[in-house]
Amino acid sequence: PDWEIVVLDGEEQLRRVFTFKNYAKALAFTNTVADLAEAENHHPAILLEWGKATVRWWTHKIGGLHENDFIMAARTDEAYRSSN
Amino acid sequence: PDWEIVVLDGEEQLRRVFTFKNYAKALAFTNTVADLAEAENHHPAILLEWGKATVRWWTHKIGGLHENDFIMAARTDEAYRSSN
Repeated sequence: PDWEIVVLDGEEQLRRVFTFKNYAKALAFTNTVADLAEAENHHPAILLEWGKATVRWWTHKIGGLHENDFIMAARTDEAYRSSN
Repeated sequence: PDWEIVVLDGEEQLRRVFTFKNYAKALAFTNTVADLAEAENHHPAILLEWGKATVRWWTHKIGGLHENDFIMAARTDEAYRSSN
């Protein structure tokens, strides 16, 4: 499934579920995305589960989506392609 | 806040929110808990956010809580104490 726009706590967010063969691969992806986040000082929520990582990007400061969130979503996709 | 029992998708789970000074520390804790999970082959859901990691333990196979979930919750607490 691709990115979808969801509203959580009244704020629009970009959300995508990424699937993996196991927990370790989902964890490795979580770390890759988190490193990307630290480098950009823009931090998503990442839900790590067995074989799955759900990433949400949004800009809390503006209470919704900024162009940067879409850029980070695209970079997250790139990271997924590289990891699989 | 301590562990609380929540019902998600019809299954009882143990949930606790752990707070940190920043994203990097929350990420490090996520990795510690994930390593513990891999060692025990029992995998929690971990929601990583800025300065926060929310851990949920339950046993999907029995659709709820097993003694092992309480043991893992206690070990998660230990990991938090060591990390902070």
